Order: sequence, then structure tokens, then C-alpha cells
Amino acid sequence: MIIIMKPDATSSNIERVANYITDNGLQVHLSKGTEVTIIGIVGDKSRLSTENISIFEGVDRIVPVTESYKLSNRKFHPEPTSVKVGCTSIGPGNLTIMAGPCAVESNDQLMLIAKAVKASGATMLRGGAYKPRTSPYSFQGLEQDGLKYMQEAGEATGLATICEVVSQEAIEAAVKYVDMLQIGARNMQNFYLLKEAGKTGMPVLLKRGLCATIEEWLNAAEYIIAEGNPNVVLCERGIRTYETATRNTLDLSAVPVLREKTHLPIIVDPSHSTGSYRYVPAMAKAAVACDADGLMIEVHNNPACALSDGPQSLNFEKFDRLTSQLAPFCQIVGRSFQK
Amino acid sequence: MIIIMKPDATSSNIERVANYITDNGLQVHLSKGTEVTIIGIVGDKSRLSTENISIFEGVDRIVPVTESYKLSNRKFHPEPTSVKVGCTSIGPGNLTIMAGPCAVESNDQLMLIAKAVKASGATMLRGGAYKPRTSPYSFQGLEQDGLKYMQEAGEATGLATICEVVSQEAIEAAVKYVDMLQIGARNMQNFYLLKEAGKTGMPVLLKRGLCATIEEWLNAAEYIIAEGNPNVVLCERGIRTYETATRNTLDLSAVPVLREKTHLPIIVDPSHSTGSYRYVPAMAKAAVACDADGLMIEVHNNPACALSDGPQSLNFEKFDRLTSQLAPFCQIVGRSFQK
Amino acid sequence: MIIIMKPDATSSNIERVANYITDNGLQVHLSKGTEVTIIGIVGDKSRLSTENISIFEGVDRIVPVTESYKLSNRKFHPEPTSVKVGCTSIGPGNLTIMAGPCAVESNDQLMLIAKAVKASGATMLRGGAYKPRTSPYSFQGLEQDGLKYMQEAGEATGLATICEVVSQEAIEAAVKYVDMLQIGARNMQNFYLLKEAGKTGMPVLLKRGLCATIEEWLNAAEYIIAEGNPNVVLCERGIRTYETATRNTLDLSAVPVLREKTHLPIIVDPSHSTGSYRYVPAMAKAAVACDADGLMIEVHNNPACALSDGPQSLNFEKFDRLTSQLAPFCQIVGRSFQK
Amino acid sequence: MIIIMKPDATSSNIERVANYITDNGLQVHLSKGTEVTIIGIVGDKSRLSTENISIFEGVDRIVPVTESYKLSNRKFHPEPTSVKVGCTSIGPGNLTIMAGPCAVESNDQLMLIAKAVKASGATMLRGGAYKPRTSPYSFQGLEQDGLKYMQEAGEATGLATICEVVSQEAIEAAVKYVDMLQIGARNMQNFYLLKEAGKTGMPVLLKRGLCATIEEWLNAAEYIIAEGNPNVVLCERGIRTYETATRNTLDLSAVPVLREKTHLPIIVDPSHSTGSYRYVPAMAKAAVACDADGLMIEVHNNPACALSDGPQSLNFEKFDRLTSQLAPFCQIVGRSFQK
Repeated sequence: MIIIMKPDATSSNIERVANYITDNGLQVHLSKGTEVTIIGIVGDKSRLSTENISIFEGVDRIVPVTESYKLSNRKFHPEPTSVKVGCTSIGPGNLTIMAGPCAVESNDQLMLIAKAVKASGATMLRGGAYKPRTSPYSFQGLEQDGLKYMQEAGEATGLATICEVVSQEAIEAAVKYVDMLQIGARNMQNFYLLKEAGKTGMPVLLKRGLCATIEEWLNAAEYIIAEGNPNVVLCERGIRTYETATRNTLDLSAVPVLREKTHLPIIVDPSHSTGSYRYVPAMAKAAVACDADGLMIEVHNNPACALSDGPQSLNFEKFDRLTSQLAPFCQIVGRSFQK
Repeated sequence: MIIIMKPDATSSNIERVANYITDNGLQVHLSKGTEVTIIGIVGDKSRLSTENISIFEGVDRIVPVTESYKLSNRKFHPEPTSVKVGCTSIGPGNLTIMAGPCAVESNDQLMLIAKAVKASGATMLRGGAYKPRTSPYSFQGLEQDGLKYMQEAGEATGLATICEVVSQEAIEAAVKYVDMLQIGARNMQNFYLLKEAGKTGMPVLLKRGLCATIEEWLNAAEYIIAEGNPNVVLCERGIRTYETATRNTLDLSAVPVLREKTHLPIIVDPSHSTGSYRYVPAMAKAAVACDADGLMIEVHNNPACALSDGPQSLNFEKFDRLTSQLAPFCQIVGRSFQK
Repeated sequence: MIIIMKPDATSSNIERVANYITDNGLQVHLSKGTEVTIIGIVGDKSRLSTENISIFEGVDRIVPVTESYKLSNRKFHPEPTSVKVGCTSIGPGNLTIMAGPCAVESNDQLMLIAKAVKASGATMLRGGAYKPRTSPYSFQGLEQDGLKYMQEAGEATGLATICEVVSQEAIEAAVKYVDMLQIGARNMQNFYLLKEAGKTGMPVLLKRGLCATIEEWLNAAEYIIAEGNPNVVLCERGIRTYETATRNTLDLSAVPVLREKTHLPIIVDPSHSTGSYRYVPAMAKAAVACDADGLMIEVHNNPACALSDGPQSLNFEKFDRLTSQLAPFCQIVGRSFQK
Repeated sequence: MIIIMKPDATSSNIERVANYITDNGLQVHLSKGTEVTIIGIVGDKSRLSTENISIFEGVDRIVPVTESYKLSNRKFHPEPTSVKVGCTSIGPGNLTIMAGPCAVESNDQLMLIAKAVKASGATMLRGGAYKPRTSPYSFQGLEQDGLKYMQEAGEATGLATICEVVSQEAIEAAVKYVDMLQIGARNMQNFYLLKEAGKTGMPVLLKRGLCATIEEWLNAAEYIIAEGNPNVVLCERGIRTYETATRNTLDLSAVPVLREKTHLPIIVDPSHSTGSYRYVPAMAKAAVACDADGLMIEVHNNPACALSDGPQSLNFEKFDRLTSQLAPFCQIVGRSFQK
């Protein structure tokens, strides 16, 4: 970390900053340029609250030289990670397709959908049992029953299963029934939940928060990994912007940016980001083309009757057509995808 | 709720939508205009997932006629609410000033600050015991010890106390020690936490999420009130925009908008929104001028050494000067404020 | 257009609105539902300023039934448009690649770049002669000389040429030298410039404004077409959001949304949107995969010495590698691209 | 300007950057810290395109030490500026109220409004003659006739007049009839127009662009001043965010931020920012409380019949009530305001 002093900072300004740093057990590396003086801090920075230095007189700004996330940082783990989930694995060489209903509605419905998405090439089954809904009066999910249906559908089809968790209670139930936990966008900075998910050691899909920066996202991943759980997969699902033609704005450039900054696998969710089944195929293809490791797509046997997110769900026929269209893209980008 | 059909919708398109509605036990009110046909839905709409109707052929859009929030809605509760907290109350006629450190650091520090802010006119003491921090390596708070110090400082000074809660565990501890719970911006749509806060029956300060719309915010309040707890106070603390000159963008227009839409009291936090002590006084005055019911301001005995948010904290002298400047504004807007 | 009255609107509220409409020579279609009354307006709505109706007592909101843009609207022109530029054409069946330097710097430089991008498969040469720069002290372009060099390079290579215009003066010069005019993001709502560009009858590339909605963008296109010039091509180049990891956020979902709403061709600019050469290839592939009609890519013989936008420019080798990688994608999406 | 090298930059990386700088006639100040090497650039930086250095191998980032705007920068002009317009002046000690219709509709209407706003305390008359409208089919203004009516109304009442200009043609007409030119939000980065406005030497009100940062705004002001015209006033009018409860989001914190960064006067427009007459009074008071130098408020004799922006216009009675309410605020903040 370096501190840039203002052009008109006095020597006593500089001295005061330097003393503050050495008083905290760190060392100072001073460099007086012609325009400005720069103060480098040497040692374990976690000892002092560096942001405060910005209010010392004469300080222009503080420039961090290293990122605050370490375990999710590609600098320290240059090789891309593969995360094993059930019999499948998410990462280099594969295109993982997680498909299924927004919310689990019944055992029969889920079984029907699981078989259909499996037939079309999905390797994982998604389905919400605990639904975070904007209004308390909307359908909130089947909770534990939903998890059980997920397990049954997973066993019947051989699909690995993933379910969102929204509380410690939900985590405790989910670990018994599904293969992967999902932390949703609204909970991306629910640090308590991140730690609990980390403690389980299970694979975790971490969705990007609605207005999270990529840096905050990687710091959230760090919370999980810091609990000893390296099995984290990131999922871009659209960010909030002023544009209302789509539900959110899919930030697809996040894929190459993340590739550079982290070794963790990256999934793209074209359903929640666009909010309309009409835009899902185009964005799914774009995601594969820019080298995402997989897709999370909402599929429903009868979208018009879905209890949640019907407008963005594909029916079986549309999903099957899409996976057929994705196959040649997979070949170009060098990812195996069996259909 | 009304459904607007497309100009070129066929009679069979219209019929199919109408049947879907009546099949769900509701009634239909049809209005064929010259340009478009409009379908009104009559009855308890919670029975069907209305968003799905948008994917029926021939449907242009769905227009909700009523808000999804009821208990926090001014339409049904025209009189403004006052929320009692300890010996003070937040609402019409008062200017409530909640002041204190971002994080409780020690018993001595907190006692010192509590006495100072009390002397300058604050009626409530704020202080974080559980800190949600972007990086897992930043100071995370004193937890239960912090709560105890809050209680002691509150008792010693007569200030009501408020503390952020981030988990059920934190709620269980906080109810024993402080007068008001705070749900922070990152947890505004942690619906599980909202319900738990609702169940306590205690006053709750609900901060606006970093990218929450006012409508989502009022729906979040609805989660708390729906648990039987009407003691909710809203706190505008800045939203995320592209502008980086301030930490966030204080959306002060939210104050008159909320006045219109809800009966709940409204607090403004100029510290977190601007991120700099230099901008706090201007925004505090603006908030009082546009009729906020109170302010939440970070005050620290030595901002340069604060373990969290030092750059935006006022020292005692600056806070005292500010409250002196606020007094004449309170007189104009008709709010009592004793100093 | 329909007007939705509030549930508690009185008959005299309704009457007053109806009278206002009929007083303006239009007709009213009244529909009293059980919850609300809806007033449809029949006739030529351009006669009255409909937004004002929102302030009549008892009015809840106004819902437009038709878009304000007509000539750029797919509803009225279902077939996709091809725009001829020089010997090439932008639209269905082709992948148009516009490549070249951000700013024209010299005749030699431009000739060198033109030959290189031609060899790699570009069909159009881009190059700025009038540069809109944030600071008045940055390089502002070679102006008319730059246009002349564009013409020479175009003639030497057979590439069609495109240049940004920023004033009437620049338009007058550009029509003499280049094949296509570009309206930049900062001028998307410079309506005066749009009209002038429309009057030339020349092909116009209309970049999306930094914070323009898709609807505003199509209305801007309408300004050009309304002057009798149907040769408009749209260019998505990233929008401004809170994320700073990329220069702007490329809104790639705009491609399928525009396909639905307009018949105009769509180009994607991965250079300006991401701001870094490292992210250009991934986003170029994604754009082709989601069915864009072309790409605008910054290429420079020596990016490190570019007078403008060096960091986002590809050198010849990187550009050549990219076009080779794009070829198989073109085959899948059914667009011809010769290299 | 300083260049921060990556921790793993090699000596040849460093050497290459240093050579590039010295080859451009500048000097280098090298500082090797324990973590990173920092390269300071000494001399006239306008000679090289510094952003390019970011793509040299081993470079982590470039940190500007000084702002790119100079003439609008408070560092070099510590005293706040007053801008004289007609008989009034905008700046310290005064509260300037610019009021009038969004669009000039007729001579009679304008005269009526001018007299009313004068009686309520306005010192300047605003009114649009050239209207930049989203759709080409909306009312575009009376153009030159509108300007004449402005002049007549100004002379009859003694109010100084201000009118938006959208083209060189409009500037040429406006300088003959009004006292102050306005550059609207959509043209804030129409650099050609800024230069033309600068050349007139007349007072210019520069509105903030819909998604302009404060830094870009001050650079836009720099374009005007660099033409030899120091008479620039800034006007905050709301920025575009995801929130739709208001037309835009009024960024009132921009007022204290600007105070720190620039010596130019600051006006706040609560009409365009909120988009509703219901929110104008609260935001007008807030603006005065946080020390704005004035307000721009839309007033119409009959908002329901306004040709533009009716919903956000105050009628005479509401405007008069507002100015009465503002008077005591002016007293507190020490600004003279006669009513």
C-alpha cells in the first residue's frame, strides 16, 4: 500500500503520517518526488485501519497495491480450478448446464422436468426450495419438502442437484439432500451465511449481488474459502442498471475479467438477468462463446403456470432446441457437452 | 390488476387469458377499446402468479393497480407513525439524532463518546457490535461484549441504544441489551432476518439496500410488520450509482417520496452515504430541511484511529458545531430538538 | 394510450379528465371496472401533451399502448434492413468488421493500418478525425486532413470508410470524403446533429448514449429517419454503471432486445465498452454468437504510442488472430465473412 | 503523474517504461520500494498520451496526481466566483431563483408567468425556445420567436433571462435576446457547442449530464472557460439511476463536493430531477440548506395545459408559497433573498 501526499503537504504532515505508521509497528519507505511525496507501507497491513490515513492532513489518496482477496486470487493460484459436484465437475473442458424450475412446486413436476432437462443435455438439476421473494405475500417455497424432491429427482436421473439456501436452518437441511448450495444475489454480502456455507465444505455457487462490484464478489468468495472450503463457483446473473428493457443487465464482460482475476469457475445465468425466455437463447450462446464454464437456465413444464419466474422460463421444446444450438459452440471453444 | 392486450391480439388470445383467470377462481372484467382490449382481474389475486400472464400470446403488459405492500402503505394508514424507543420517540414533531462510533471498540471509548454526543443533543447512541465487512480480514466487531458496552453506556447517559444485527444469533443477543435493532443495507433483502426481527416486536431501523428501489424497501418493511411488529423506521443511507466522488449517492428525494407512500418515520444517514466527514454537515442540514424525522451520524473520539469508517466520522468538536447549526433549521420545520 | 384512474377517483375527477380530452378534439372510451376506471384516448394523440394528464386529480398513471418511434419500429417494418455502405452492406447474412485506429494520426499510419485490417478480413475502415475528448487539453483530431487520409486509405484498399461527426461543419466536410457518418455516444441526443445527419441521406452509425435506454436510442434513430434517411445502423458500445473493472458495461442483451423492436442492423463495439484489449476478443465472439450484424474494433500499429485509446486497441497480430477465431462462429450463425 | 509497477515487474519492464517517458522529452523519478517500484513523471505531461503506459508490461496502474481541469479548479482560484447576469449576480451572499415555464408557448403566457414569478421573488426568468425532446414528434419550441418573447418579458419585469441553446444557430440568435445561455444535460459533452458558448463571452449555465461524473462536468466547464469565458455557473439537475420513483435522482451531495473542487457558483434544479411538482418544495429547501447559490424552478400558469413538463411545474400559488417558505432558510444560511 502506498500513500500519495498532496503537492502542498508540509514536512510535518509527512512526519505525522510516517509516525502513525511506525507507531502501529510497520515500516515506512519514503520517496520524495518533484511533484509529490509518496509513502510506502512495509509490513503486515492488517494491523492498522489504513483507510483512516486518508483523513490525515496533507494526504491526497491511498493506493492499495495488492487485492484484499487472496484465496480466490489468480495471482496466487494460477491454475484454473475444477469443482466436483456429484458425478460431474465444473471447470475447464466442460460445459455444465444447470437447468430446472425456479421453484420446486411438487414431486411430480420436478421429476418430469428433471427427466426432460437430462434428455436435453443438462448435467445438473436446479430448483428452489427456499424462495427469497420481494413481497411477503408471494409463494415462499416448499422448504424441506422441496429439498427431498430434489434428492429424489437427482437419484432418479443421475443429475447433480443444486438448491438456494437463505438461512442457517436452510443450510442444515440442504446439506442432507442436495449436492451443491447456492447463495443468491440478495445474500451475496450476508457474511454470516457465507461463513456457514463455508463451514459445510460443500460446493457453493455464489451468485453476484445485484449491485456488487467484481471486487466485492471475489471478497465474498473469500469469506467462503477462508472457512476452509475451496469449492466455490461464481455465477453472473445480471446487475441493476437504469435500463428496464431487460430485468437486469447481464454483465458478460465479467467473464473475461474474472478469468484474469480468479481461478474459480464461472457460470452465467441468462434467465434471471434478461427476465424473458425470448432473450435466453441469444445470451446463452454469447456466454459459451466468451468462455463461461456453464449455464444456469430456468426450465418449466408449463411456464404459464409456474409459481415463480414463469416469464423467463423455457419450456421443454425451447430448451431442447437451445442445447442443440449450443453444441457447435462448445466444439469451437473446446468444451465437452454430451447430448 | 389489469392486463393490456396487444392491438393485434385475436379473440382466441383474449379468451385464453380470460379462461386462465376464471380457472384460478377469479373473475374477469373485459373492456374492448378501439385500440386495445383491457382485461381487469377481480378477486383475491394472491391465488395466481400474475406475472406469468405476460407470456400468454397477445398480452402486451400487466399493470398493477395496487401496491404489494399494505401494512407500510400510507393509503391504509394515513396518519404518520411515531415509534417509541426507550424514553424517546421517532416521528412527527421530533428530530432524533442517533450518534456514535461505526464500531464499538472498547467500554471506555464508548462511554466517552456516549457522554459527548449526549452533551451535543443526541438522543440515541449508535454503535456496531457485529460488523458486516467487505473483506473477511477486516475487523468484524466485538459481538456480545460490544452489546454489553452499549447497554452500559445507554444506562449511564440515558440515551436509547441501537445496534446492527446480522444473524439470528445476533438478534437473540441484541434483544437483551439494546433498545432498537438495525437491519443494514446488505441485509435489506435477507428476508429470513427480516422475519426474525419482526418476531422480536422491538423497534427496527431498516436501512435501504445499496440498490433497492423504494418499492422494494417498503416491501422489506412489510416483511417485518407482517410478523406483528409495527415499530419500523426507515433509513436512507445512499444508493450505488456510477459517481465515485462520494462513497454512495444520497437519494434525498426519497424523503418526500416516502412521505407520500408510507406512514413510517424516516431517518437519513449522511455519514455512510457521503463517506466523508467533510460532506456530512451539508447533507445533515439538507435532510432536516426536507423534513426527515432524524439523522444517524458517525462520531468518534479520534477518527484517525477508528477501527472502521474513520474517514466519515465527525470528532466531538465537529459534531457539536453541527448540532448547533441544526437547531435553527429544526425551528423552521417545527421539530423539537434540545441542546 | 389509456389512463388508469385511482381506486378512489370521484365521478367529477373522471369527468374532468374526459372533458380535457374531448376539448382537445379527441374521443374518450370509458371502462368502469370494479376496482378502477380506465379511460382510453381515441384519435391523434400528438394533439395534446398527454403527460400532463398525470397531474389531474384522481389519475393514477398513464400507460402508452404504442411506442413513440414508428420508422425504426419493427412492428411496421417486419423485414430486417440492410444498409449499403460503399461496396459492402451491413445486415442479414454478413458479418461486417469495421476496424482502424481511434484517431487518425497521419497519412502513413492510416495507410499501414488500413492494409493490415483489410488483410485480416475487415470490410470497413474506422478512424476519428474529430475527437470528442473529456478534457480540452487532450488531442482533438486532425479534422479535415484526417478525413482526406481516410478517403485515400479507403481508395487504396477498397475498404468502405466511417468517421465520427460532432458538428454541422464536420458533417459538411465528412460527406465529401467518407462513406458513412458516425454519431458518437456523447451526441446521441444532440437532436440538432441527428437532423443534420438525416438530411445528408448518407449511411449513419448511431452509437448508444452512455446512459440511454433502448427506447431513447430508437427515438434518436427516428430523428434521422424522419428526415428521409432510412440508412441507420445502431451500435452498442457499453453503458455507464457502477462497475469500474471495465470502462463501461457492454449491454449485450441489447442485441436480442433490438432484434425484436427494430428492423435496423446492429453493430457491437467491444473496444470502447471494455476499455481493454485483453477483453476485446471474448466480447467480439459473444457479440457474433448472439447475432450482431458486425463489430467495430480499434486496431493500431503500435498501441503503446496511440494518441487516443491505446489501452483498448489491438495490434495487427492480435486482430488477425481474433478474425481467425471469429470465422467458425460466423459459420454457425450463418453470416458470410471472408478472410 | 505516477506509475505504479506490478510487484513482479522486471528491471527491463521498468527500463522500457522509463525510456518511453524520456524519449518523449520528459524526466523520470524512480523510487524502488520493498513491494513495488514507482515511476514519477516530471515535465509537461500533455506531450505524451499517458494512458498508453498502462499497457506496457509490468505496469499495474497510473495514478494522476493533479486534476485535468485547471481554470475551473478551486486549487488555483480559492475565492468563490460571482457571475453577473443582467442586474443580478449569482454567487456568495445571494439566493438566485430562476423560474418560468419549461417551454415558451406564447407572448401572453410568458408575460403572465414573468410577472407572477417576479412578484414571488424570482430574479431570473427561464423559458425554453429550443426544446431537445426524446421524440421527434413532440413540440420542439418556438425558436427565435420564443427568444423575442423572453426579451420582452425580461424588459417588462426587470428579470434577467436565460434560455437553452442546442446548436450554433441557436447561440447566434440567443446572444441577441437573452442574458444567459443554458447548455442542457444532453449537450454537456457536446464539446463543439461548449466551445461556441465559450466564444460568446456571455454567462453560461452548464447543466450536469444525465450520467456525467463531477469530474467530467468540471472538464466540460473547462472547455467554456478555456475559450476566455469565465462566466460559468453549474446546475445539478439529477442523474440517471435505477430508481424510477423520481424522474432522475437529485445528487444533492454534489453541492458540497463542488464547493470543495471548484470556485464556480452552483444552482440546483429540483423540477427536472424529481419530475413531480409534489417533490419540488422539499428538494428546494434542501438545496438552500446545503448552501446552493440558487434554484431553477419550473412555473406555469396552468400546468395541466403546459406543452412540456407539466407534471413537474408549480402553479403560481404553489410557487409563491414555496418562496415564502424559503425565506427563513436564506436567513440561516446568510443569503439575501427579497420577496
